[in-house]
Amino acid sequence: MKKIEEKVFRFIDRHNLIEKKDNLLISLSGGPDSVFLIHFLSKFKKRFDIRIGAFHLNHMLRGAESDADEKFCARLADKLGLDFYCTKRDILSEAKKNKISVEEAGRMVRYSELEEIALENHFNKIATAHNCDDNSETVLLNFIKGSGLSGISGIPARRGNIIRPVLCLDKSEILSYLKISKINFRLDSSNLSSDFERNFLRNKIIPLLEENLNPNFSQTVFRNSENFRNLLSGIEETLERFVSGFVRKHQTEIEISKDAFLKLPEGFYGIFIKTILEKYLNIQASFVDVNKVLSLLDKTAGLKVEISGGYNVHNERNSLTIKRPLNSKDEIVKIKVGSEVVIPAGKLKIENVSASKIALTNKKNIEYISADTIEGDFELRCWKKGDKFIPLGMNHSKKVSDFLTDQKIKPSEKKSRQVLLNNQKIVWVIGERIDERFKVNKNTKRILKLTLN
Amino acid sequence: MKKIEEKVFRFIDRHNLIEKKDNLLISLSGGPDSVFLIHFLSKFKKRFDIRIGAFHLNHMLRGAESDADEKFCARLADKLGLDFYCTKRDILSEAKKNKISVEEAGRMVRYSELEEIALENHFNKIATAHNCDDNSETVLLNFIKGSGLSGISGIPARRGNIIRPVLCLDKSEILSYLKISKINFRLDSSNLSSDFERNFLRNKIIPLLEENLNPNFSQTVFRNSENFRNLLSGIEETLERFVSGFVRKHQTEIEISKDAFLKLPEGFYGIFIKTILEKYLNIQASFVDVNKVLSLLDKTAGLKVEISGGYNVHNERNSLTIKRPLNSKDEIVKIKVGSEVVIPAGKLKIENVSASKIALTNKKNIEYISADTIEGDFELRCWKKGDKFIPLGMNHSKKVSDFLTDQKIKPSEKKSRQVLLNNQKIVWVIGERIDERFKVNKNTKRILKLTLN
Repeated sequence: MKKIEEKVFRFIDRHNLIEKKDNLLISLSGGPDSVFLIHFLSKFKKRFDIRIGAFHLNHMLRGAESDADEKFCARLADKLGLDFYCTKRDILSEAKKNKISVEEAGRMVRYSELEEIALENHFNKIATAHNCDDNSETVLLNFIKGSGLSGISGIPARRGNIIRPVLCLDKSEILSYLKISKINFRLDSSNLSSDFERNFLRNKIIPLLEENLNPNFSQTVFRNSENFRNLLSGIEETLERFVSGFVRKHQTEIEISKDAFLKLPEGFYGIFIKTILEKYLNIQASFVDVNKVLSLLDKTAGLKVEISGGYNVHNERNSLTIKRPLNSKDEIVKIKVGSEVVIPAGKLKIENVSASKIALTNKKNIEYISADTIEGDFELRCWKKGDKFIPLGMNHSKKVSDFLTDQKIKPSEKKSRQVLLNNQKIVWVIGERIDERFKVNKNTKRILKLTLN
Repeated sequence: MKKIEEKVFRFIDRHNLIEKKDNLLISLSGGPDSVFLIHFLSKFKKRFDIRIGAFHLNHMLRGAESDADEKFCARLADKLGLDFYCTKRDILSEAKKNKISVEEAGRMVRYSELEEIALENHFNKIATAHNCDDNSETVLLNFIKGSGLSGISGIPARRGNIIRPVLCLDKSEILSYLKISKINFRLDSSNLSSDFERNFLRNKIIPLLEENLNPNFSQTVFRNSENFRNLLSGIEETLERFVSGFVRKHQTEIEISKDAFLKLPEGFYGIFIKTILEKYLNIQASFVDVNKVLSLLDKTAGLKVEISGGYNVHNERNSLTIKRPLNSKDEIVKIKVGSEVVIPAGKLKIENVSASKIALTNKKNIEYISADTIEGDFELRCWKKGDKFIPLGMNHSKKVSDFLTDQKIKPSEKKSRQVLLNNQKIVWVIGERIDERFKVNKNTKRILKLTLN
């Protein structure tokens, strides 16, 4: 076996990326990295005892060239005897529509298509071809722009069902392997990317650093980012051990015991607060937010500060309580499919699912609806006088107010109940009943799952 | 008060750098940073309720210019009504003699002189004028060359009795303050430094990063390095909490309980091993060393690996023991004044002290000797047949072998006892008795302290 292949084996082994009987869907752009990945996995398919398939996203960004990329990938999969899946999407329009960069749009569509196709075709894992240079660019950029430990922990070898088996290899190692093995590839489209910052690092800064300070820059960063990732998970494990001792989670707020918190390792105060806010309340807390919370710890009870997401932190006698003010009766929150928001009742998530994934239950916190008539984003707000909907199973509309009374919701609670709307129509009286017009039937093509946690 | 002054006040406050009645010795080069520092501390001397003095090291690197730096500093101290201390040292020769860089030699001499003068003149703290740019250069260099969390934690605001009150300020903030306040300074000698790596970052890389990616690069790095420093101290605190549960320290080895170790947060395995090796055995463990130790944890008992410093790690049934092989009977270890080494009996340290610091005790592990006749480095080895010395309090020489027998040292232990030599003469039968010829008397000018811990 060649040295570079051994290196990949050791990396896969060290991170337990591949198990016997895995079904791997490979993200294939046609560039050197993914061509190496597909050849490698194909060559050692029997040894790993896995099934593999390939997916290509035609970005439609470079006209005939993009189509040639697609053809190249199709032929390669065919030559290797692998199932091939392909989607053609106008990424430029997608980017404009969502007001995001072309790179971000490409990434978003690619991952969402990969997930979809994996689900439909029973691939349990997705393999992407990120390499060590991608990692060092990401880490360096995060470092320069200022991120915490997670930013410099780099691209994870594994995240959920996504694995990156060639993350340990430099681009130059991949290129020289392909050259020696006489394997063709397409010009890497990432080099043509308009991502100024990344290209600036790749083409200007990193070569300067390699030439003058550290010829093994990428490998150094890679080793360090793995160490930082370990430290981060050590910190998270430490938090897990202590968290039940100082945090109590209630329906719409969390309570942090001041005494118990002050007994923790002091160096972790900041990261613990940041993690707890993110984990329990879905708040992306800034440096300033965290310091605001910490500043209350040695102050007299009674003070209150406001942090991101409209949350208030109250300094009580023995604890800090963090909650959203409930006077947001008229507030309307927009929700995109694929995102989640925190509302007083919990975390609300809206996601695409394939029909095979539906597991009908009686749980009032999980609902499936037809997405076929959905238009644009969803909206969330408290119900208003006059709101009507057709409760599932009925054939006429009913006032939300009357419906809630029928459900025996206490008057004191009733007023803070919320409804989810699409295009002015009530889709879900949250946590209670969906609308008859949005129910899934045998003709439904796209399904959305609504979850309240 | 000016904005920049307020910023420094907040920084000093946040890190508790200055307390009432402090006596601060300021390291004054004459460059903008230290000139700012001395003006600032002088201006707010009463408010802080402190006494301050200034120290200048004449590096003799630039002839007349160096002497002009010295004169400038002396005049400035005089103008501000402060005690002024100055040392002239040929740093170039110092560097050549010790085979280190000019920067390193300068740093070494400067800190050692500062400590000496502070001790003699009752300054309880030393203030240096490192700024935010110094910090970001250090952090970026460590990041590029590959260091762990400590390397990217930057320059500490406080280390022992050394404080850095202006670490929070950018160079540009300092320069603009001096300009507006019409305060003169000397051309910063650090810019003329031959430290290629640091200058490359300062003059080439950082300006590129500031122009293209983050105009507030230094401040971003500063904030992050403070966060990383917190995390590092959190990790150290966590280790402190757990360490007695899994590490036992014996005379010449440490023992790590495998069961107890494996119950710790997994992400901390690496940094815990690294820290323990450094703390208990003074081993600067590499990434490879740490992985060697960790690899034993799930292996069958009986295996042994060697790590840096000649230490062996033995995989026993329930524990790992880490020790130095004792067959180093003929080995001779060189020790410089100001350094320490680990020997089977513990950690041996040799340091300069001022007469006022001597605290005579009956402890056999602390001795004071006269340094007036000391030449070159010390040597350490096991005693040999024929070795003689004059035990303190006697007027004739005696065989070390007989002396140890008189001291009732068991024969089995006797052979591994070590002696400290200078210029072929035995200075100390370690842990037992010093030689009469090296004792401190009223004419002694320089004193060395020997400690075995």
